[in-house]
Amino acid sequence: MSGVPEHLPRRASEIAHWDDSADVVVVGYGCAGACAAIEAGRAGADVLVLERAGGGGGTSANSGGLLYLGGGTPLQKALGFDDEPEEMFRYLMAACGPEPDEELVRPYCEHSVEHFHWLVDCGWPLKEAFFTDAHEPPGDESLTYSGSELCWPFCDIAKPAPRGHCGTVVGPKGPLLMQILLGAADRAGARVRSGARAERLVVGADGSVVGVVGRSGGEAWAVRARRGVVLTSGGFIYNRTMVERYAPLLGRCLYKVGTEHDDGSGIQMAAAAGAATLRMDAGDVTLPLFPPVVLKQGVLVNRLGQRVLNEDSYMGRLGEFSLLHHDGRVWLVVDDAGFAQPANAPSQALSVGESWAELEAELGFPEGALQDTMAFYNRHATRGEDPLFRKQRAHLRPLDQPPYGALDLSVDKVIYAVFTLGGLWISPQGAVRTPSGEDIPGLYAAGRTTSGVAKQGYSSGLSLGDGSFFGRRAGRTAARRP
Amino acid sequence: MSGVPEHLPRRASEIAHWDDSADVVVVGYGCAGACAAIEAGRAGADVLVLERAGGGGGTSANSGGLLYLGGGTPLQKALGFDDEPEEMFRYLMAACGPEPDEELVRPYCEHSVEHFHWLVDCGWPLKEAFFTDAHEPPGDESLTYSGSELCWPFCDIAKPAPRGHCGTVVGPKGPLLMQILLGAADRAGARVRSGARAERLVVGADGSVVGVVGRSGGEAWAVRARRGVVLTSGGFIYNRTMVERYAPLLGRCLYKVGTEHDDGSGIQMAAAAGAATLRMDAGDVTLPLFPPVVLKQGVLVNRLGQRVLNEDSYMGRLGEFSLLHHDGRVWLVVDDAGFAQPANAPSQALSVGESWAELEAELGFPEGALQDTMAFYNRHATRGEDPLFRKQRAHLRPLDQPPYGALDLSVDKVIYAVFTLGGLWISPQGAVRTPSGEDIPGLYAAGRTTSGVAKQGYSSGLSLGDGSFFGRRAGRTAARRP
Repeated sequence: MSGVPEHLPRRASEIAHWDDSADVVVVGYGCAGACAAIEAGRAGADVLVLERAGGGGGTSANSGGLLYLGGGTPLQKALGFDDEPEEMFRYLMAACGPEPDEELVRPYCEHSVEHFHWLVDCGWPLKEAFFTDAHEPPGDESLTYSGSELCWPFCDIAKPAPRGHCGTVVGPKGPLLMQILLGAADRAGARVRSGARAERLVVGADGSVVGVVGRSGGEAWAVRARRGVVLTSGGFIYNRTMVERYAPLLGRCLYKVGTEHDDGSGIQMAAAAGAATLRMDAGDVTLPLFPPVVLKQGVLVNRLGQRVLNEDSYMGRLGEFSLLHHDGRVWLVVDDAGFAQPANAPSQALSVGESWAELEAELGFPEGALQDTMAFYNRHATRGEDPLFRKQRAHLRPLDQPPYGALDLSVDKVIYAVFTLGGLWISPQGAVRTPSGEDIPGLYAAGRTTSGVAKQGYSSGLSLGDGSFFGRRAGRTAARRP
Repeated sequence: MSGVPEHLPRRASEIAHWDDSADVVVVGYGCAGACAAIEAGRAGADVLVLERAGGGGGTSANSGGLLYLGGGTPLQKALGFDDEPEEMFRYLMAACGPEPDEELVRPYCEHSVEHFHWLVDCGWPLKEAFFTDAHEPPGDESLTYSGSELCWPFCDIAKPAPRGHCGTVVGPKGPLLMQILLGAADRAGARVRSGARAERLVVGADGSVVGVVGRSGGEAWAVRARRGVVLTSGGFIYNRTMVERYAPLLGRCLYKVGTEHDDGSGIQMAAAAGAATLRMDAGDVTLPLFPPVVLKQGVLVNRLGQRVLNEDSYMGRLGEFSLLHHDGRVWLVVDDAGFAQPANAPSQALSVGESWAELEAELGFPEGALQDTMAFYNRHATRGEDPLFRKQRAHLRPLDQPPYGALDLSVDKVIYAVFTLGGLWISPQGAVRTPSGEDIPGLYAAGRTTSGVAKQGYSSGLSLGDGSFFGRRAGRTAARRP
């Protein structure tokens, strides 16, 4: 393992000339950066955004545009769903572990309705329409289940409610979200330097962060931050060295969610200035199997023929279980009545047999392993029961219509979509912390540059959700610094 | 989560008076610290060791005293075992993952025979006797299998050889090892301050480490290091805040291996001075089930009645699989002919039934789950086969002698012995690195203050093994610094 590019901080005394200055300097102009810029600008700060790409948007603009919001938003209410901050809190504390950070999860839930209103006030257009299929709506609906709320064990832990909110537009909703947020940041007075690659923090004699240096094309520049620097420059899934060093299992996934600017530069700059990092091994690992929803009737097994979990679980939970607990080797077993070819699996990924014994042999599984699993599953499913994982009745029936099939969903065969969840340790106000738990004066962060609400377990909308929420807080905290 | 005690570095310019000075200052006097002191002293350096306890030894003196050595040591040869550095390398790269650090594993294997001779030259007494039971010898034998070398899948990956070496003495071998090493360090001229608690590094204007400050009782002191500081102050299993923050799953285990000085102070001091940390979530999680060895004939299942892994695996692998992949909830299922009460399980941990169906009901397992698992296991075991996990034939037979029993080996019921494996990122020469991969001038480390050979998967003897090996290198590198 060799080192990653050098991001050691510069000392302020070494900076002969500042090319620009602002009260608050925001590094990265995705969702978290835009929200930081809006709030800092509205608080009266002069705000300068440094963005490496030609314009704002970042990975957020390439995303599905879902935000995980709840606790009783007007949209939830209008569509007939009861929710409470406490139920949202219980769900996230159970689903985002092991051991999510209550210090972040608590305010994220308690102020989620307020955050909803803030986004709507920015111009986020929502439609009072609910999408039933529990993944990102392909149409213009604005509310959906985006996690495992309806699924065991979470349905026993917290009252389920759909919390995936998105702007109303047919197709991907990330561009719409970012168009709204960038417009609001512009109206709040944020100045933007695009094509500007931040490389190092500038640190004062007392250890506080007072600026950023970097390059635009070949040209070096130094920007002074009078009140603070907010790092919102994404995660590190596109930094092969960092993935290998900190999160090697994530490197096995075929599809990286992000842009090549998700190279960890913000994490590296801050760490080199004394910032702590948390849970650097964690990642969202989505196995995008559905639609077609009929496949939830299938049975997910590992190489031993053992069932893995309830197949109606959120796709990020399916991928996580496969990669972290089953060596990335799983198969979805179906019968003829429950099969439809998923977009994510090539047709050659399907093995077929006229009986479970034949399919088992075809797969090279140990003799009897799959036969036992399916006999057990079918015997209970006939009674409407799933004693192992309590799959929802809607997807539960005995698989007894030959021919039988098995889709190879191993991590080297089909797309697992991955991005990193580890990063800087922040306070609930968005301040970056040292390993000792002290705030680094003048340094703030949000989004996937930080370790946020989801420590490992994931639900869709949590990255735009906590990025926007703590991005706002980071911008406000920086703007108000004396 | 609140912060941990403050370990921010002091600046050299703030130190008005140095109470002592040495070429090389070693912090912590366990196995890694003693080896650093020996090598630095032999290289001609004036060496000062700072130890918090009343004397040397640390967690190493409380340990079983096994060192993982191989590649063809004289003891392996004398006892008729062939081994090669390449076989040892293959085993460790497979067993110490995911993704062990080849940069450390390679030299550890290639120079293991040399390290053996060095230890013997220090006075480590060995007896040409092999202990057959694959755990720490209770008698005076000096060689044993201390990992999963004989077990699938490792037996297919590398030619098995026993690599657990220990000094010859009846009972625990840690005190003997430390007596030898402390004696050698004394002969090499190392001075020792005991009762001296190091608290912060002292850093020069150029960022290099030039000393340590701390306290002895209530009295503050400052010690200058002319060439370097070597941090060998153990892991962080006794720091509840750090465990909660970085390695929350490890906190579920009932027994912490170490002393209360394993509070992460060395890691914190270095991180506050710009050091990178690696794999902070990792730990050795040992489920000390054997002896009695007869229990390896049992079948380890999770709460779904699914079999977990080959029961003859190393106890650190059993504990790791249980805690990391099965929520810490596993049972060992036995029949009457294969049962003996283990020391680690209270008698009330045993459930009994006259048939598998009765035992299954007694455990509250889903109907048929355990019956299927045992029918499958017995059918194959009758033929001498274990198609799921290829348990060794010596431990494989159908379990068909009622009554049947199940020992509850869940993490909240029996002892899982745990210590941390995450820590500072070091170079193969023992230098502490920044997140950018640069050496921090004047700062070195070894032992469980560092992330070493075992990144997650463990075998007994790897901590004394890599602590002594890279401790020597750290001491030499520090002593030779201009």
